[in-house]
Amino acid sequence: MWLQREIVLPAQRRGFHLITDIIECELPELQDINVGVMHLFITHTSASLTLNENADFTVRSDMEKHFNVLVPEDAPYYEHTYEGSDDMPAHIKSTIIGVNHTIPITNGRLNMGIWQGIYLCEHRDSGGQRTIVVTINGE
Amino acid sequence: MWLQREIVLPAQRRGFHLITDIIECELPELQDINVGVMHLFITHTSASLTLNENADFTVRSDMEKHFNVLVPEDAPYYEHTYEGSDDMPAHIKSTIIGVNHTIPITNGRLNMGIWQGIYLCEHRDSGGQRTIVVTINGE
Amino acid sequence: MWLQREIVLPAQRRGFHLITDIIECELPELQDINVGVMHLFITHTSASLTLNENADFTVRSDMEKHFNVLVPEDAPYYEHTYEGSDDMPAHIKSTIIGVNHTIPITNGRLNMGIWQGIYLCEHRDSGGQRTIVVTINGE
Repeated sequence: MWLQREIVLPAQRRGFHLITDIIECELPELQDINVGVMHLFITHTSASLTLNENADFTVRSDMEKHFNVLVPEDAPYYEHTYEGSDDMPAHIKSTIIGVNHTIPITNGRLNMGIWQGIYLCEHRDSGGQRTIVVTINGE
Repeated sequence: MWLQREIVLPAQRRGFHLITDIIECELPELQDINVGVMHLFITHTSASLTLNENADFTVRSDMEKHFNVLVPEDAPYYEHTYEGSDDMPAHIKSTIIGVNHTIPITNGRLNMGIWQGIYLCEHRDSGGQRTIVVTINGE
Repeated sequence: MWLQREIVLPAQRRGFHLITDIIECELPELQDINVGVMHLFITHTSASLTLNENADFTVRSDMEKHFNVLVPEDAPYYEHTYEGSDDMPAHIKSTIIGVNHTIPITNGRLNMGIWQGIYLCEHRDSGGQRTIVVTINGE
């Protein structure tokens, strides 16, 4: 069985945001799959997806703070600057974190750890809507 | 053909550890697949998986040393500190390195390069057992 | 439907290189797939693959410059130094960026964003040819 759907997320402020519930809500067919995988792909170059802790919001705000240290704005060697100070760092963060992830499906549910959630990582100050292509394959 | 199995790895010290042999041993059905993929997913938020050099242990110890520089303990801006100095860095390392990877299967074997191995990356001082969900799909 | 092919890329200079056209040219069967995924896997430990901006070459040169800051050559704590100053940083960059990615296929085309392209990330000064295993699964 193959299923593919595009989910358009409303604009989010810069930072790391839990979207597990949105993904699961938009894919009720998950419950019909005994064994398979769900593939997530964000179709942008200045946002990314990751899986991390789903309980304490300070994990997400600390992550935003540390990625801003790892990939600072206005580094003197950046040449790609015409879209703003947040643009080139957004591209680099997107490549570090990644735009695609695959999660196992087991007995009709995403087989993640109890503390794992899916994050949308918005790296632009005003990134606008973001589109995720979700592909499910299983039986 | 679909096959899914959970592998529980015993506790490892903090650092990068080769687990290729364990994965291959636990999945003897690999040899029956002509073309397909193996998906690995670690169900934790303070450990991760990667693929890298499988021969010289100093690659793995240098990697541990450099990730400790990239993501230091006790950064003054961390707020998520109540689980210890190694906790927030572990979450960030997990997002940088990633918790899921897919490897091609060709003629009954993982089609990796001759120097590639699968690493468990343990980012906690005492992370305990770690679970990996392995999903094989192929024909 | 399963399809797997190995693509050997000619040696590239150190840096980030767009390879979307090469991948699509080598996989004309893409057009026969309504829904599926394409999995890319580079069989090396000192190169990597990513998806990022496909238009302005300064994005790719800025990325090379910033990764050289994040993962410098000749860090005093590196022990794995006998293959040259560019070797250990290449392994670390490969783990940060990743050696495998999966892209959705929709109606016979890679379903990427309009600004997304596939990059070969060459982290060695003289990395030589690089092999990518491409696996397509869909219907």
